[in-house]
Amino acid sequence: MDPQLDKLKFDRDGLIPLIVQDVDNGEVLMMAYMNREAIEKTLATGKVHTYSRSRGRLALKGESSAHFQHVKQVLTDCDRDVVLIKVVQDVAACHEGYRSCFFRAYEPGAAEWKTVATKAFDPDAVYKK
Amino acid sequence: MDPQLDKLKFDRDGLIPLIVQDVDNGEVLMMAYMNREAIEKTLATGKVHTYSRSRGRLALKGESSAHFQHVKQVLTDCDRDVVLIKVVQDVAACHEGYRSCFFRAYEPGAAEWKTVATKAFDPDAVYKK
Repeated sequence: MDPQLDKLKFDRDGLIPLIVQDVDNGEVLMMAYMNREAIEKTLATGKVHTYSRSRGRLALKGESSAHFQHVKQVLTDCDRDVVLIKVVQDVAACHEGYRSCFFRAYEPGAAEWKTVATKAFDPDAVYKK
Repeated sequence: MDPQLDKLKFDRDGLIPLIVQDVDNGEVLMMAYMNREAIEKTLATGKVHTYSRSRGRLALKGESSAHFQHVKQVLTDCDRDVVLIKVVQDVAACHEGYRSCFFRAYEPGAAEWKTVATKAFDPDAVYKK
């Protein structure tokens, strides 16, 4: 029904990788996966929906936390096998409380990845209430 | 040998998604995949290496075009199943001549994705000489 979506290349599981980026400062917020239904829901509602591989179902990003991602632009790449969505992020994207899921940096010689961000919210307060 | 790499989660094919971002302006340049060897080579050389699924081998990004990606920071996400590398990009990332592979935007109601970037180089001149 939507010829632009027909041209996207989904993988053997019917999924396409999604990168979500903050439209205001360019920060990469998270990576997830979408199936065709997730893209259609995202376009129809203006809020990012993903296909949750762990839960095996469509998921509205922010459905537990109310930290929604408001769609500003939807892009795809040269091969049309990745989707990039620029969003306005409510509060923070990461379920661990960070603005971005990419809060760990490689430190040469270290035993563990280094946390390079500070928390934007307390996940215990948001998810357990 | 490297405890930080030991903590990364590779998929059933031994791969982990890689997002490459321009360190200067935050532009998402491309998505690719790495195996453990690609990450080790990237860390050892300071230039992004990927695992090319189409060619079935390790690939130095820019090996044909000399458009290398110089590593400035390597990050991973909360689940440690995605890698994000911030780079200084030589010339452009996309083999179609665009600075970023994400040069197509969704246009509501249109038949085709809209090209929203201009070419940084002529791919015919770079790849066929």
